[in-house]
Amino acid sequence: MVRVTITQVAAHAGVSVASASRALNGQIASAETVAKVQHAAATLGYVADATAQSLKRGRTKQLAYAVADIGNPVYVEMMSAIERVVSASGYRLVLSSTGTSSSSVDVVRDLGRGYVDGMILSPLRVTDELLTALAKTPTPVVVLGRLPDDVNLDTVRADSLTAMRLVVGHLVAEDRRDIAFVNGPVDTTPGAFRRDGFAAAVLAHPLLTTRSVDAEDFTISAGYAAARQVLEGDRRPDAIVAANDLIGIGAIRAAEDLGLRVPHEIVVTGIDNTELAGVVRPGLTSVDLGAEERGRVAAELLLARIAEPSRAAHTVTVAPSLVVRGSSVHRPNTQGHASPADRSTEATGLGEERAAG
Amino acid sequence: MVRVTITQVAAHAGVSVASASRALNGQIASAETVAKVQHAAATLGYVADATAQSLKRGRTKQLAYAVADIGNPVYVEMMSAIERVVSASGYRLVLSSTGTSSSSVDVVRDLGRGYVDGMILSPLRVTDELLTALAKTPTPVVVLGRLPDDVNLDTVRADSLTAMRLVVGHLVAEDRRDIAFVNGPVDTTPGAFRRDGFAAAVLAHPLLTTRSVDAEDFTISAGYAAARQVLEGDRRPDAIVAANDLIGIGAIRAAEDLGLRVPHEIVVTGIDNTELAGVVRPGLTSVDLGAEERGRVAAELLLARIAEPSRAAHTVTVAPSLVVRGSSVHRPNTQGHASPADRSTEATGLGEERAAG
Repeated sequence: MVRVTITQVAAHAGVSVASASRALNGQIASAETVAKVQHAAATLGYVADATAQSLKRGRTKQLAYAVADIGNPVYVEMMSAIERVVSASGYRLVLSSTGTSSSSVDVVRDLGRGYVDGMILSPLRVTDELLTALAKTPTPVVVLGRLPDDVNLDTVRADSLTAMRLVVGHLVAEDRRDIAFVNGPVDTTPGAFRRDGFAAAVLAHPLLTTRSVDAEDFTISAGYAAARQVLEGDRRPDAIVAANDLIGIGAIRAAEDLGLRVPHEIVVTGIDNTELAGVVRPGLTSVDLGAEERGRVAAELLLARIAEPSRAAHTVTVAPSLVVRGSSVHRPNTQGHASPADRSTEATGLGEERAAG
Repeated sequence: MVRVTITQVAAHAGVSVASASRALNGQIASAETVAKVQHAAATLGYVADATAQSLKRGRTKQLAYAVADIGNPVYVEMMSAIERVVSASGYRLVLSSTGTSSSSVDVVRDLGRGYVDGMILSPLRVTDELLTALAKTPTPVVVLGRLPDDVNLDTVRADSLTAMRLVVGHLVAEDRRDIAFVNGPVDTTPGAFRRDGFAAAVLAHPLLTTRSVDAEDFTISAGYAAARQVLEGDRRPDAIVAANDLIGIGAIRAAEDLGLRVPHEIVVTGIDNTELAGVVRPGLTSVDLGAEERGRVAAELLLARIAEPSRAAHTVTVAPSLVVRGSSVHRPNTQGHASPADRSTEATGLGEERAAG
């Protein structure tokens, strides 16, 4: 087999040999040049010298995890899972906090500068601009969340519909009939999918009365404000389904400040099953969307993509599970984890974790 | 004034013109080359062309915050404060999770690769190896924490001694006489300073009985395990001083699992005054070490250092304040924030925050 030279790669890409070399060595080059040179190298089968191997192994040994709100512990849990996988492969992980959607686009565009070998992106909003940036970037990206079906990228998804079915089914079994859904902003990906999931889940229970209110953010204080509004309204619901644990904790505190006992006068559920859900009192019933598993799978997909850039895109959906705690049941219930409900005897689970670990 | 050329800078640094240009343009160059070239450029007064201006303004418009344990919400609070300052100046912030001390050294060494224009480092352990790496790096670094006095770097410090005096003074005023200090690992910077602070603070109260135990980590589960050991021992203390909020929350849960009422049979205090301290029940009395302020100051010092690399090093110490909540007092007490103690009437503070915001 005749060895393909960098001169041939450069000619095929229509760039200078120096540019081709810079692009393949991971030195600073425009995203467009890197894309053209990588494509030319892949097309011609340019491999098996030190330069190409360095490209293949990763140029910076650094990967990024880009997330909107690092104040939400579920993203910290994901990051820990991602870090365990990538550090075992000799990579360092950096975190980019994207905040707004425009900043998320900037983060993807900047990948062309070559400061990382790949990125796991958890976008709060999927805009056309973001999809365009994702299509253009030469750097491997795995998306945590949902993308349009025609986007050809490795993706790891939660299952909001099943999550909401588990929550609503549990509340119906606990004789709750009037449910208020406290969502986060619906112009976000989780907000939109949890709204749709809730709407679909309650369809199966025609006798339910439901309503929705959107908190300003997926935070404890925004959840407190939105839940307080619901609880002070004319018709008080007998259950609050919160779109995440932070909103749910805010709802428990709002009920408490109004003198309402949880779960006796109002039950509350969350989503994400963060460590906090087990630490607050009463413990917060929550749906585990498999944050750790999603992080682990995303990291493995990214490493596989870096090792084999041309492999087919994967979409992995991780199944949710319901963890029942004192915020939604009066009696002990062992659906999911152990979860005695009466405050005076409610165990933290910390003792058992310790024994198990 | 005669314009200094890049050829003169290269000659002075003893490197090729190409290397000098790469170093000044922020392209990949060895840390040593970057240091030599930057030194030569500063010595000769090489400024005022596009290359030098790009160097002066920042090459990547990206800054890093390196921290050991992003699972601790106090670091997330700091990160938010840092981000507000740096994004207002047009920089993006990336986070490096350092974990162990050796990884913290790697992070500093890698700065020479030029992927960021500066770094804020919150080291869990200050080793000689880390100090050597800090002395060698050409990239501006601001340290959150305490360094030996002869280290000439911008530093932002908490005041552990005053923090411990506030806590111990409060407990003595609440008639507590037998205090157990549940620390984190003492081979860490916060562990060492909080141990010394506690020892110094109790010296002022000779009638106190005290003891110390070290949790395996600054986490809820490690705090739970260590506090449980203390509470199950022969002589039960009447107060637990936890080295941070997570350990304190673990201690409250350990007491609860043993059937001990907080604050009636055992009082508990934390350090950091994270959002969690106000969210758990009973609310956790805690010392605010000014995490937000420390983050803000560190970011401002870093931007000032980037703008003026030769300015004198600053050391800023941020004063702590005590926030009393239900975990340490039986009656409402307004030292610090409002903090009614009886669980049935304890307000979250969330309503007030909302009104204030």
